[in-house]
Amino acid sequence: MKASIPIKTVLLAALLVLSSVAQASDVKNKLVIQVSTDDARTQKIALNNAVNLQKLYGMDNVVIEIVAYGPGLGLLTKKSGQASRVESLALQDIHFSACGNTMSKVAKKSGKKPVLLEGVDQVTAGVARIMELQQQGYAYIRP
Amino acid sequence: MKASIPIKTVLLAALLVLSSVAQASDVKNKLVIQVSTDDARTQKIALNNAVNLQKLYGMDNVVIEIVAYGPGLGLLTKKSGQASRVESLALQDIHFSACGNTMSKVAKKSGKKPVLLEGVDQVTAGVARIMELQQQGYAYIRP
Amino acid sequence: MKASIPIKTVLLAALLVLSSVAQASDVKNKLVIQVSTDDARTQKIALNNAVNLQKLYGMDNVVIEIVAYGPGLGLLTKKSGQASRVESLALQDIHFSACGNTMSKVAKKSGKKPVLLEGVDQVTAGVARIMELQQQGYAYIRP
Repeated sequence: MKASIPIKTVLLAALLVLSSVAQASDVKNKLVIQVSTDDARTQKIALNNAVNLQKLYGMDNVVIEIVAYGPGLGLLTKKSGQASRVESLALQDIHFSACGNTMSKVAKKSGKKPVLLEGVDQVTAGVARIMELQQQGYAYIRP
Repeated sequence: MKASIPIKTVLLAALLVLSSVAQASDVKNKLVIQVSTDDARTQKIALNNAVNLQKLYGMDNVVIEIVAYGPGLGLLTKKSGQASRVESLALQDIHFSACGNTMSKVAKKSGKKPVLLEGVDQVTAGVARIMELQQQGYAYIRP
Repeated sequence: MKASIPIKTVLLAALLVLSSVAQASDVKNKLVIQVSTDDARTQKIALNNAVNLQKLYGMDNVVIEIVAYGPGLGLLTKKSGQASRVESLALQDIHFSACGNTMSKVAKKSGKKPVLLEGVDQVTAGVARIMELQQQGYAYIRP
Protein backbone atom coordinates (compact mmCIF):
# COMPACT_ATOMS: atom_id res chain seq x y z
CA MET A 1 0.00 0.00 0.00
CA LYS A 2 1.25 3.46 -0.88
CA ALA A 3 1.63 5.97 1.93
CA SER A 4 -0.50 9.06 1.54
CA ILE A 5 0.60 12.46 2.79
CA PRO A 6 -1.50 14.66 5.06
CA ILE A 7 -2.70 17.76 3.24
CA LYS A 8 -1.22 20.00 5.93
CA THR A 9 2.25 18.62 5.26
CA VAL A 10 2.01 19.32 1.56
CA LEU A 11 0.66 22.83 2.08
CA LEU A 12 3.42 23.56 4.58
CA ALA A 13 6.04 22.31 2.13
CA ALA A 14 4.55 24.43 -0.65
CA LEU A 15 4.57 27.47 1.64
CA LEU A 16 8.21 26.89 2.53
CA VAL A 17 9.16 26.66 -1.12
CA LEU A 18 7.14 29.74 -2.07
CA SER A 19 8.47 31.84 0.81
CA SER A 20 12.06 30.99 -0.07
CA VAL A 21 11.32 32.10 -3.63
CA ALA A 22 9.73 35.32 -2.37
CA GLN A 23 12.67 36.04 -0.09
CA ALA A 24 15.14 35.72 -2.92
CA SER A 25 13.33 38.32 -5.03
CA ASP A 26 12.52 40.60 -2.09
CA VAL A 27 13.50 44.12 -3.12
CA LYS A 28 15.45 46.12 -0.58
CA ASN A 29 17.08 49.40 -1.44
CA LYS A 30 20.80 48.77 -1.45
CA LEU A 31 23.37 50.73 -3.40
CA VAL A 32 27.11 50.51 -3.80
CA ILE A 33 28.82 53.66 -5.05
CA GLN A 34 32.26 53.21 -6.60
CA VAL A 35 34.96 55.84 -6.24
CA SER A 36 38.00 54.89 -8.30
CA THR A 37 39.13 58.32 -9.41
CA ASP A 38 41.04 61.14 -7.73
CA ASP A 39 38.94 63.71 -9.57
CA ALA A 40 37.72 65.94 -6.72
CA ARG A 41 34.45 66.80 -8.45
CA THR A 42 33.51 63.17 -9.03
CA GLN A 43 34.36 62.31 -5.42
CA LYS A 44 32.09 65.12 -4.22
CA ILE A 45 29.28 63.91 -6.48
CA ALA A 46 29.61 60.42 -5.00
CA LEU A 47 29.02 61.83 -1.52
CA ASN A 48 26.13 63.98 -2.76
CA ASN A 49 24.54 60.93 -4.39
CA ALA A 50 24.66 59.03 -1.12
CA VAL A 51 23.21 61.92 0.89
CA ASN A 52 20.39 62.60 -1.58
CA LEU A 53 19.41 58.96 -1.75
CA GLN A 54 19.36 58.64 2.03
CA LYS A 55 17.21 61.79 2.31
CA LEU A 56 14.79 60.48 -0.29
CA TYR A 57 14.23 57.01 1.17
CA GLY A 58 14.93 57.72 4.84
CA MET A 59 17.87 56.29 6.74
CA ASP A 60 16.09 53.02 7.59
CA ASN A 61 14.97 52.26 4.05
CA VAL A 62 18.21 52.29 2.13
CA VAL A 63 21.66 50.82 2.66
CA ILE A 64 24.50 52.72 1.01
CA GLU A 65 28.14 51.73 0.79
CA ILE A 66 30.84 53.80 -0.84
CA VAL A 67 33.82 51.69 -1.93
CA ALA A 68 37.04 53.54 -2.77
CA TYR A 69 39.97 51.96 -4.55
CA GLY A 70 42.88 52.87 -6.78
CA PRO A 71 43.23 56.62 -7.26
CA GLY A 72 39.89 56.96 -5.42
CA LEU A 73 41.31 55.77 -2.09
CA GLY A 74 42.38 59.31 -1.17
CA LEU A 75 38.74 60.23 -0.49
CA LEU A 76 38.84 58.06 2.63
CA THR A 77 42.25 58.92 4.08
CA LYS A 78 43.35 61.66 6.47
CA LYS A 79 44.53 63.65 3.45
CA SER A 80 41.05 63.71 1.89
CA GLY A 81 39.65 67.05 0.77
CA GLN A 82 36.31 65.77 2.08
CA ALA A 83 37.64 64.43 5.39
CA SER A 84 35.17 66.01 7.80
CA ARG A 85 32.23 65.28 5.52
CA VAL A 86 33.18 61.61 5.21
CA GLU A 87 33.52 61.24 8.99
CA SER A 88 30.20 62.95 9.53
CA LEU A 89 28.42 60.77 6.94
CA ALA A 90 29.94 57.63 8.48
CA LEU A 91 28.08 58.56 11.66
CA GLN A 92 24.87 58.90 9.63
CA ASP A 93 24.91 55.31 8.51
CA ILE A 94 26.69 55.68 5.16
CA HIS A 95 29.19 52.83 4.97
CA PHE A 96 32.69 53.49 3.69
CA SER A 97 35.08 50.77 2.54
CA ALA A 98 38.70 51.36 1.64
CA CYS A 99 40.61 48.93 -0.57
CA GLY A 100 43.32 47.08 1.36
CA ASN A 101 45.15 46.21 -1.87
CA THR A 102 45.45 49.88 -2.78
CA MET A 103 46.59 50.72 0.76
CA SER A 104 49.45 48.21 0.57
CA LYS A 105 50.44 49.54 -2.84
CA VAL A 106 50.50 53.14 -1.59
CA ALA A 107 52.46 52.04 1.49
CA LYS A 108 55.06 50.31 -0.68
CA LYS A 109 55.47 53.30 -2.96
CA SER A 110 55.45 56.09 -0.40
CA GLY A 111 57.01 54.23 2.52
CA LYS A 112 54.07 54.87 4.83
CA LYS A 113 50.65 53.33 5.07
CA PRO A 114 47.77 55.72 4.43
CA VAL A 115 45.68 56.46 7.52
CA LEU A 116 41.95 55.97 7.13
CA LEU A 117 39.38 58.44 8.43
CA GLU A 118 37.21 57.63 11.46
CA GLY A 119 34.36 55.29 10.58
CA VAL A 120 35.95 53.92 7.42
CA ASP A 121 36.32 50.14 7.14
CA GLN A 122 39.16 48.41 5.37
CA VAL A 123 38.26 45.59 2.96
CA THR A 124 40.65 43.13 1.31
CA ALA A 125 40.05 44.43 -2.19
CA GLY A 126 37.70 47.15 -3.38
CA VAL A 127 36.81 45.38 -6.62
CA ALA A 128 35.99 42.16 -4.80
CA ARG A 129 33.82 44.07 -2.34
CA ILE A 130 31.90 45.76 -5.16
CA MET A 131 31.35 42.41 -6.88
CA GLU A 132 30.16 40.75 -3.68
CA LEU A 133 27.73 43.56 -2.88
CA GLN A 134 26.20 43.23 -6.35
CA GLN A 135 25.89 39.51 -5.75
CA GLN A 136 23.94 40.40 -2.60
CA GLY A 137 21.50 42.48 -4.62
CA TYR A 138 23.09 45.90 -4.36
CA ALA A 139 22.57 48.22 -7.32
CA TYR A 140 25.73 49.88 -8.60
CA ILE A 141 26.59 53.45 -9.44
CA ARG A 142 29.88 54.83 -10.69
CA PRO A 143 29.54 58.63 -10.69
CA MET B 1 -7.70 8.58 8.46
CA LYS B 2 -5.38 11.05 6.81
CA ALA B 3 -6.71 13.03 3.83
CA SER B 4 -4.91 12.27 0.62
CA ILE B 5 -4.43 14.87 -2.11
CA PRO B 6 -5.47 14.32 -5.72
CA ILE B 7 -2.43 14.02 -7.93
CA LYS B 8 -3.77 16.81 -10.19
CA THR B 9 -3.75 19.26 -7.29
CA VAL B 10 -0.16 18.52 -6.46
CA LEU B 11 0.98 18.75 -10.07
CA LEU B 12 -0.86 22.07 -10.47
CA ALA B 13 0.78 23.40 -7.31
CA ALA B 14 4.19 22.28 -8.55
CA LEU B 15 3.57 23.97 -11.90
CA LEU B 16 2.57 27.21 -10.20
CA VAL B 17 5.73 27.19 -8.10
CA LEU B 18 7.90 26.37 -11.07
CA SER B 19 6.34 29.00 -13.31
CA SER B 20 6.81 31.70 -10.69
CA VAL B 21 10.46 30.70 -10.48
CA ALA B 22 10.76 30.81 -14.26
CA GLN B 23 9.10 34.21 -14.42
CA ALA B 24 11.54 35.68 -11.93
CA SER B 25 14.52 34.63 -14.00
CA ASP B 26 12.88 35.50 -17.33
CA VAL B 27 15.40 37.50 -19.31
CA LYS B 28 14.21 40.63 -21.01
CA ASN B 29 16.64 43.08 -22.55
CA LYS B 30 16.58 46.19 -20.43
CA LEU B 31 19.39 48.69 -20.06
CA VAL B 32 19.86 51.88 -18.09
CA ILE B 33 22.59 54.20 -19.35
CA GLN B 34 23.93 56.73 -16.87
CA VAL B 35 25.05 60.19 -17.94
CA SER B 36 26.57 62.04 -14.99
CA THR B 37 29.29 63.96 -16.77
CA ASP B 38 29.31 67.12 -18.89
CA ASP B 39 32.03 65.66 -21.09
CA ALA B 40 30.57 66.10 -24.58
CA ARG B 41 32.29 63.02 -25.99
CA THR B 42 30.96 60.74 -23.25
CA GLN B 43 27.46 62.13 -23.70
CA LYS B 44 27.65 61.41 -27.41
CA ILE B 45 28.86 57.86 -26.73
CA ALA B 46 25.88 57.33 -24.42
CA LEU B 47 23.49 58.19 -27.25
CA ASN B 48 25.45 56.04 -29.71
CA ASN B 49 25.29 53.10 -27.28
CA ALA B 50 21.51 53.40 -27.08
CA VAL B 51 21.09 53.63 -30.85
CA ASN B 52 23.38 50.70 -31.59
CA LEU B 53 21.70 48.47 -29.02
CA GLN B 54 18.26 49.30 -30.38
CA LYS B 55 19.41 48.57 -33.93
CA LEU B 56 20.89 45.24 -32.87
CA TYR B 57 17.89 43.90 -30.95
CA GLY B 58 15.11 45.71 -32.73
CA MET B 59 12.93 48.36 -31.08
CA ASP B 60 10.49 45.83 -29.62
CA ASN B 61 13.12 43.63 -28.04
CA VAL B 62 15.01 46.04 -25.84
CA VAL B 63 14.05 48.77 -23.39
CA ILE B 64 16.59 51.56 -22.99
CA GLU B 65 16.52 54.43 -20.52
CA ILE B 66 19.11 57.18 -20.33
CA VAL B 67 19.23 58.81 -16.91
CA ALA B 68 21.05 62.13 -16.64
CA TYR B 69 21.99 63.75 -13.35
CA GLY B 70 24.57 66.13 -11.88
CA PRO B 71 26.82 67.62 -14.54
CA GLY B 72 25.18 65.22 -17.02
CA LEU B 73 21.80 66.95 -16.83
CA GLY B 74 22.78 69.40 -19.58
CA LEU B 75 22.42 66.62 -22.17
CA LEU B 76 18.64 66.76 -21.70
CA THR B 77 18.01 70.51 -21.51
CA LYS B 78 17.33 73.08 -24.21
CA LYS B 79 21.01 74.06 -24.03
CA SER B 80 22.18 70.55 -24.96
CA GLY B 81 24.69 70.20 -27.75
CA GLN B 82 22.72 67.07 -28.73
CA ALA B 83 19.26 68.66 -28.45
CA SER B 84 17.78 67.63 -31.78
CA ARG B 85 19.23 64.14 -31.55
CA VAL B 86 17.77 63.59 -28.08
CA GLU B 87 14.34 64.76 -29.20
CA SER B 88 14.49 62.52 -32.23
CA LEU B 89 15.58 59.48 -30.18
CA ALA B 90 12.80 60.13 -27.66
CA LEU B 91 10.37 59.63 -30.54
CA GLN B 92 12.10 56.34 -31.36
CA ASP B 93 11.31 54.81 -28.00
CA ILE B 94 14.53 55.66 -26.14
CA HIS B 95 13.47 56.86 -22.68
CA PHE B 96 15.12 59.90 -21.17
CA SER B 97 14.96 60.77 -17.47
CA ALA B 98 16.25 64.02 -16.00
CA CYS B 99 17.11 64.30 -12.30
CA GLY B 100 14.69 66.58 -10.44
CA ASN B 101 17.20 67.08 -7.62
CA THR B 102 19.79 68.41 -10.04
CA MET B 103 17.19 70.65 -11.69
CA SER B 104 16.30 72.28 -8.36
CA LYS B 105 19.99 72.75 -7.59
CA VAL B 106 20.65 74.39 -10.94
CA ALA B 107 17.55 76.57 -10.50
CA LYS B 108 18.78 77.72 -7.08
CA LYS B 109 22.23 78.57 -8.36
CA SER B 110 21.33 80.21 -11.66
CA GLY B 111 17.99 81.71 -10.68
CA LYS B 112 16.11 79.92 -13.44
CA LYS B 113 14.94 76.35 -13.80
CA PRO B 114 16.48 74.45 -16.71
CA VAL B 115 14.02 73.63 -19.48
CA LEU B 116 13.90 70.00 -20.55
CA LEU B 117 13.80 68.89 -24.17
CA GLU B 118 10.65 67.46 -25.73
CA GLY B 119 10.10 63.85 -24.75
CA VAL B 120 12.28 63.96 -21.63
CA ASP B 121 10.72 62.87 -18.34
CA GLN B 122 11.59 64.35 -15.00
CA VAL B 123 12.26 61.92 -12.13
CA THR B 124 12.64 62.77 -8.45
CA ALA B 125 16.29 61.77 -8.29
CA GLY B 126 18.50 60.32 -10.97
CA VAL B 127 20.42 58.05 -8.62
CA ALA B 128 17.22 56.66 -7.14
CA ARG B 129 15.88 56.01 -10.62
CA ILE B 130 19.03 54.13 -11.65
CA MET B 131 18.87 52.02 -8.50
CA GLU B 132 15.21 51.20 -9.02
CA LEU B 133 15.72 50.22 -12.64
CA GLN B 134 18.49 47.84 -11.62
CA GLN B 135 16.15 46.37 -9.02
CA GLN B 136 13.71 45.76 -11.88
CA GLY B 137 16.34 43.79 -13.77
CA TYR B 138 17.86 46.48 -15.94
CA ALA B 139 21.52 46.05 -16.79
CA TYR B 140 23.66 49.15 -16.21
CA ILE B 141 26.16 50.98 -18.33
CA ARG B 142 28.14 54.08 -17.49
CA PRO B 143 29.98 55.12 -20.67
CA MET C 1 -11.64 7.34 -4.98
CA LYS C 2 -8.88 9.89 -5.17
CA ALA C 3 -5.44 8.69 -6.11
CA SER C 4 -2.89 9.23 -3.39
CA ILE C 5 0.72 10.02 -4.14
CA PRO C 6 3.63 8.06 -2.71
CA ILE C 7 5.60 10.16 -0.25
CA LYS C 8 8.80 9.51 -2.21
CA THR C 9 7.33 11.12 -5.32
CA VAL C 10 6.33 14.26 -3.45
CA LEU C 11 9.70 14.56 -1.73
CA LEU C 12 11.47 14.09 -5.02
CA ALA C 13 9.30 16.76 -6.64
CA ALA C 14 9.96 19.15 -3.74
CA LEU C 15 13.69 18.50 -4.06
CA LEU C 16 13.61 19.23 -7.77
CA VAL C 17 11.77 22.50 -7.20
CA LEU C 18 14.08 23.51 -4.37
CA SER C 19 17.23 22.65 -6.28
CA SER C 20 16.12 24.68 -9.29
CA VAL C 21 15.53 27.62 -6.95
CA ALA C 22 18.93 27.11 -5.37
CA GLN C 23 20.58 26.91 -8.77
CA ALA C 24 19.08 30.20 -9.90
CA SER C 25 20.41 32.04 -6.86
CA ASP C 26 23.68 30.14 -6.76
CA VAL C 27 26.40 32.69 -6.38
CA LYS C 28 29.32 32.34 -8.70
CA ASN C 29 31.98 34.98 -8.94
CA LYS C 30 31.62 36.56 -12.33
CA LEU C 31 32.69 40.07 -13.26
CA VAL C 32 32.55 42.13 -16.41
CA ILE C 33 34.95 45.06 -16.56
CA GLN C 34 34.08 47.81 -19.03
CA VAL C 35 36.77 49.77 -20.86
CA SER C 36 35.19 52.55 -22.90
CA THR C 37 37.86 55.20 -22.51
CA ASP C 38 41.23 55.79 -24.15
CA ASP C 39 42.62 57.14 -20.89
CA ALA C 40 45.78 55.07 -20.43
CA ARG C 41 45.62 55.15 -16.65
CA THR C 42 42.04 53.88 -16.51
CA GLN C 43 42.90 51.10 -18.98
CA LYS C 44 45.79 50.04 -16.77
CA ILE C 45 43.56 50.06 -13.69
CA ALA C 46 41.09 47.80 -15.52
CA LEU C 47 43.82 45.23 -16.08
CA ASN C 48 45.04 45.58 -12.47
CA ASN C 49 41.50 45.03 -11.22
CA ALA C 50 41.22 41.80 -13.18
CA VAL C 51 44.61 40.52 -11.98
CA ASN C 52 43.96 41.36 -8.34
CA LEU C 53 40.55 39.73 -8.36
CA GLN C 54 41.91 36.57 -9.94
CA LYS C 55 44.73 36.41 -7.39
CA LEU C 56 42.27 36.87 -4.54
CA TYR C 57 39.77 34.20 -5.56
CA GLY C 58 42.01 31.85 -7.49
CA MET C 59 41.76 31.26 -11.22
CA ASP C 60 39.08 28.56 -10.85
CA ASN C 61 36.80 30.56 -8.63
CA VAL C 62 36.18 33.68 -10.64
CA VAL C 63 35.31 34.41 -14.26
CA ILE C 64 36.47 37.79 -15.55
CA GLU C 65 35.70 39.39 -18.90
CA ILE C 66 37.03 42.73 -20.04
CA VAL C 67 34.84 44.31 -22.72
CA ALA C 68 36.33 47.19 -24.70
CA TYR C 69 34.32 49.47 -26.94
CA GLY C 70 34.34 53.00 -28.33
CA PRO C 71 37.53 54.88 -27.45
CA GLY C 72 38.43 51.91 -25.21
CA LEU C 73 38.90 49.52 -28.13
CA GLY C 74 42.54 50.54 -28.53
CA LEU C 75 43.42 48.56 -25.40
CA LEU C 76 42.85 45.34 -27.33
CA THR C 77 44.46 46.15 -30.69
CA LYS C 78 48.02 45.74 -31.92
CA LYS C 79 48.57 49.44 -31.18
CA SER C 80 47.73 49.01 -27.49
CA GLY C 81 50.16 50.40 -24.95
CA GLN C 82 49.37 47.28 -22.90
CA ALA C 83 49.68 44.80 -25.78
CA SER C 84 52.00 42.24 -24.20
CA ARG C 85 50.19 42.39 -20.89
CA VAL C 86 46.80 41.79 -22.53
CA GLU C 87 48.13 38.81 -24.51
CA SER C 88 49.70 37.36 -21.38
CA LEU C 89 46.51 37.80 -19.33
CA ALA C 90 44.45 36.19 -22.10
CA LEU C 91 46.58 33.08 -21.55
CA GLN C 92 45.79 33.27 -17.84
CA ASP C 93 42.06 32.90 -18.35
CA ILE C 94 41.07 36.57 -18.41
CA HIS C 95 38.56 36.94 -21.26
CA PHE C 96 38.82 39.90 -23.61
CA SER C 97 36.02 41.03 -25.92
CA ALA C 98 36.38 43.71 -28.55
CA CYS C 99 33.35 45.55 -29.94
CA GLY C 100 32.71 44.68 -33.57
CA ASN C 101 30.63 47.83 -34.06
CA THR C 102 33.55 50.00 -33.00
CA MET C 103 35.91 48.02 -35.23
CA SER C 104 33.75 48.67 -38.30
CA LYS C 105 33.54 52.35 -37.40
CA VAL C 106 37.31 52.65 -37.04
CA ALA C 107 37.77 50.75 -40.31
CA LYS C 108 35.43 53.16 -42.12
CA LYS C 109 37.17 56.23 -40.74
CA SER C 110 40.79 55.14 -41.08
CA GLY C 111 40.45 52.92 -44.12
CA LYS C 112 41.88 49.87 -42.39
CA LYS C 113 40.38 47.47 -39.90
CA PRO C 114 42.09 47.42 -36.49
CA VAL C 115 43.95 44.19 -35.76
CA LEU C 116 43.11 42.53 -32.46
CA LEU C 117 45.74 41.10 -30.12
CA GLU C 118 46.21 37.36 -29.69
CA GLY C 119 43.55 35.83 -27.45
CA VAL C 120 41.03 38.64 -27.89
CA ASP C 121 37.53 37.72 -29.08
CA GLN C 122 35.37 39.90 -31.27
CA VAL C 123 31.75 40.40 -30.23
CA THR C 124 28.97 42.00 -32.25
CA ALA C 125 28.57 44.97 -29.94
CA GLY C 126 30.35 45.74 -26.69
CA VAL C 127 27.32 47.27 -25.03
CA ALA C 128 25.14 44.29 -25.92
CA ARG C 129 27.80 41.94 -24.54
CA ILE C 130 27.96 43.85 -21.25
CA MET C 131 24.18 43.78 -20.93
CA GLU C 132 24.01 40.07 -21.65
CA LEU C 133 26.73 39.24 -19.15
CA GLN C 134 24.85 41.14 -16.46
CA GLN C 135 21.73 39.19 -17.39
CA GLN C 136 23.78 36.06 -16.78
CA GLY C 137 24.64 37.22 -13.27
CA TYR C 138 27.92 38.99 -13.88
CA ALA C 139 28.69 41.90 -11.58
CA TYR C 140 29.82 45.06 -13.38
CA ILE C 141 32.71 47.41 -12.86
CA ARG C 142 33.61 50.49 -14.86
CA PRO C 143 37.01 51.68 -13.55
